[in-house]
Amino acid sequence: MRDSEAFFQSRLEQIRAEGRYRTFADLKRRVGAYPRAYDHSLQSEVTVWCSNDYLGMGQHPAVRAAMHEAIDCAGAGAGGTRNISGTSHYHVLLEREIADLHGKDAALLFSSGYIANDATLSTLGALLPGCVIFSDAHNHASMIQGIRHSGAEKYIFRHNDAEDLARKLAAVGARRPKIVCFESVYSMDGDIAPVADLCDVAERYGAMTYLDEVHAVGLYGHRGGGIAEREGLSHRVTIIQGTLAKAFGVVGGYITASASLVDFVRSFSPGFIFTSALPPAVAAGALASVRHLKKDSSLRVLHQERVAALKRELVKSELPMIASPSHIVPVFVGNPLTCKAISDELLRCYGVYVQAINYPTVPRGTERLRLAPTPLHSDPDILWLVNAMQGIWDRLKLVPAAEHSYRCQRRQITPERPSASRGSIA
Amino acid sequence: MRDSEAFFQSRLEQIRAEGRYRTFADLKRRVGAYPRAYDHSLQSEVTVWCSNDYLGMGQHPAVRAAMHEAIDCAGAGAGGTRNISGTSHYHVLLEREIADLHGKDAALLFSSGYIANDATLSTLGALLPGCVIFSDAHNHASMIQGIRHSGAEKYIFRHNDAEDLARKLAAVGARRPKIVCFESVYSMDGDIAPVADLCDVAERYGAMTYLDEVHAVGLYGHRGGGIAEREGLSHRVTIIQGTLAKAFGVVGGYITASASLVDFVRSFSPGFIFTSALPPAVAAGALASVRHLKKDSSLRVLHQERVAALKRELVKSELPMIASPSHIVPVFVGNPLTCKAISDELLRCYGVYVQAINYPTVPRGTERLRLAPTPLHSDPDILWLVNAMQGIWDRLKLVPAAEHSYRCQRRQITPERPSASRGSIA
Ligand SMILES: Cc1ncc(COP(=O)(O)O)c(C=O)c1O
Ligand SMILES: Cc1ncc(COP(=O)(O)O)c(C=O)c1O
Repeated sequence: MRDSEAFFQSRLEQIRAEGRYRTFADLKRRVGAYPRAYDHSLQSEVTVWCSNDYLGMGQHPAVRAAMHEAIDCAGAGAGGTRNISGTSHYHVLLEREIADLHGKDAALLFSSGYIANDATLSTLGALLPGCVIFSDAHNHASMIQGIRHSGAEKYIFRHNDAEDLARKLAAVGARRPKIVCFESVYSMDGDIAPVADLCDVAERYGAMTYLDEVHAVGLYGHRGGGIAEREGLSHRVTIIQGTLAKAFGVVGGYITASASLVDFVRSFSPGFIFTSALPPAVAAGALASVRHLKKDSSLRVLHQERVAALKRELVKSELPMIASPSHIVPVFVGNPLTCKAISDELLRCYGVYVQAINYPTVPRGTERLRLAPTPLHSDPDILWLVNAMQGIWDRLKLVPAAEHSYRCQRRQITPERPSASRGSIA
Repeated sequence: MRDSEAFFQSRLEQIRAEGRYRTFADLKRRVGAYPRAYDHSLQSEVTVWCSNDYLGMGQHPAVRAAMHEAIDCAGAGAGGTRNISGTSHYHVLLEREIADLHGKDAALLFSSGYIANDATLSTLGALLPGCVIFSDAHNHASMIQGIRHSGAEKYIFRHNDAEDLARKLAAVGARRPKIVCFESVYSMDGDIAPVADLCDVAERYGAMTYLDEVHAVGLYGHRGGGIAEREGLSHRVTIIQGTLAKAFGVVGGYITASASLVDFVRSFSPGFIFTSALPPAVAAGALASVRHLKKDSSLRVLHQERVAALKRELVKSELPMIASPSHIVPVFVGNPLTCKAISDELLRCYGVYVQAINYPTVPRGTERLRLAPTPLHSDPDILWLVNAMQGIWDRLKLVPAAEHSYRCQRRQITPERPSASRGSIA
């Protein structure tokens, strides 16, 4: 036991030395003031530039009202697993609403998007006899875990590469069940999958498709159904997975698919069965959020406009922005210590909170700042941020900004990722 | 793909035929009226007898007030992972409070108790070089998954059997790191582990101990620190794991241990790193709940009194209650179809909701009703329940009640469990 303590300490020392020891910002977000928050360590107000509450739905009056109402009506927790007294009417309504959002038969809620991926993929991969899984090289840690836990045979295809996928599918017996897993918006590079091409290939080889739309639901498509909705492809994707914790502003995850597939996962997946249900108030808040974003596109439009405004300023500034077709705006740094130093200086000197993103969230050598503009970031917020970054980049000439920019262009999308704990966002 | 749909349907048919297809009760709990709830399928009020909101903390005014306040102040969701803007001051305070509750250095929150087990055990088992895990035969599905996912060498010791554990520990190299995993209160049989004996043996062989107190925290010990607190053993257990979703009435899970162990899991566990933080309001509600139960034992005392009252009536009734030293009161049935029929009749004819517990939550052939009395169940509630059950047992003479009772005595604690999805509660 004493040996184990020493082991823990030495591993922690090691990540400290690598500059990737994580200290969590201790924040209090403030309704009405978002994207401002109070930082308890700093003891002052900061502007948050790295939240995944992409639209500010976490402070939306309809969402908060629904949660208040559910707490007063049904109380705090669900009081049980879904099967043993934990299903409330809010859960039932939310599952229906999600299925409708994606044009599917049925949906199933999980504690989180992470669990939705882990539980669904591990169950399908383990129980479908002879199942083979094809996984995009940039898939998120939660999908990687689910696939690993399934014990199924797996092949990794080159990121966003439908031809490579086709080659790999062709090499596997035609009659074996196959699942092709990928994301729509990749959350650390901000690139978007060629969903139609991947569906074409999957269909050609009789494979099911599993699409993680965690960073797209609520944000893309006429009703917020994600990239698949925007491109009219929802009906061609076998299983769409999403989260209620990002654009929808609350917490929880889900899958949506055919009635029998959903019923199968519901009936056989330990990660769904053996855990307490989400609180009724969480389901109620998420329900209000999904409903709002289904019928009202104004936040989505404003969001994209703000994203464009930030990108324009970054291009002008010549900061090493990684170009992306989505709302995710990464700025390349490429070294964990520098990345942390920049993030610290932004926080302390400028009151700007942008978390340094390091390994294992992104591959080593591709450390970055990842900016997430929301409809609530104003023009002055954008100018302040970009000026602050420019100031720091200039001051840190020691670490040549030009070289960063060059490496960034060359490695815009990094082909290789470390195995165990790679993943596109944390 | 068509083949897969057919496969899903045939497996669902199979569990239907076995009588263990699960239909979730669609409930709306009502603050102030607990343990009453409105059943949306039945369209009438029922009395819930199977909730794990053991003390009714889910409707406690202090818990609800804390959640309301946090929603108005900080909004609905956390807006990020713990590392990327998702840590709120409520999370920080809650982790401190939990560590204090168990007399440990530090604590770490997870999305659920399930994830706390899965993430912690899989990380420790995978990263501690040469780690060997010793697991009680009745451990919950979430621990079993964590151990399996770790890939570590594992040995299953006989349920609650310190001698068997000693034999198994003795057979493994003295210098290898070892973890002994068990629960305090087993949630389907209601029996309690000999924590001191297991700690003695673990210490003798230099093993760490991992204790799941999910069904004990809030309920036992002077401050609600669980069985380990009640028996003055908290300092001897290396890692205590708990949930915020049962006696504490909200949702979420945790571990608490030495500072470096907690920091290690925080820094290396994908199941902790790659997922959105719990909402601030969930942390705030749980904080209020833990604080209340720490300083006020009245609900704990009343709970045990109600448990004793129910057990007295069941003994009088000669229904096949499985004797237990805890608050969990199982009544043996032993057949999934009969179990479901009884549960259905209790609901429809008597307005009593007790979920039938079947495989994989308990081993096949040990299907049961599992009663969970709370401080809010009155004497008339107890009499009504016991009379209703007696009526059904009499009417179903076809399935001899005496034989049940006999089998129940012989198999009170079932030695064997099915492998894949065994677990003590769902
Ligand atoms: C692509 C992807 N999938 C799944 C998840 C997990 O979702 P959640 O935060 O709801 O657990 C995340 C991030 O957290 C993600 O980036
Ligand atoms: C022994 C045990 N451990 C862990 C869990 C999981 O806890 P949670 O419901 O918080 O996921 C449960 C039940 O759900 C349990 O019975």
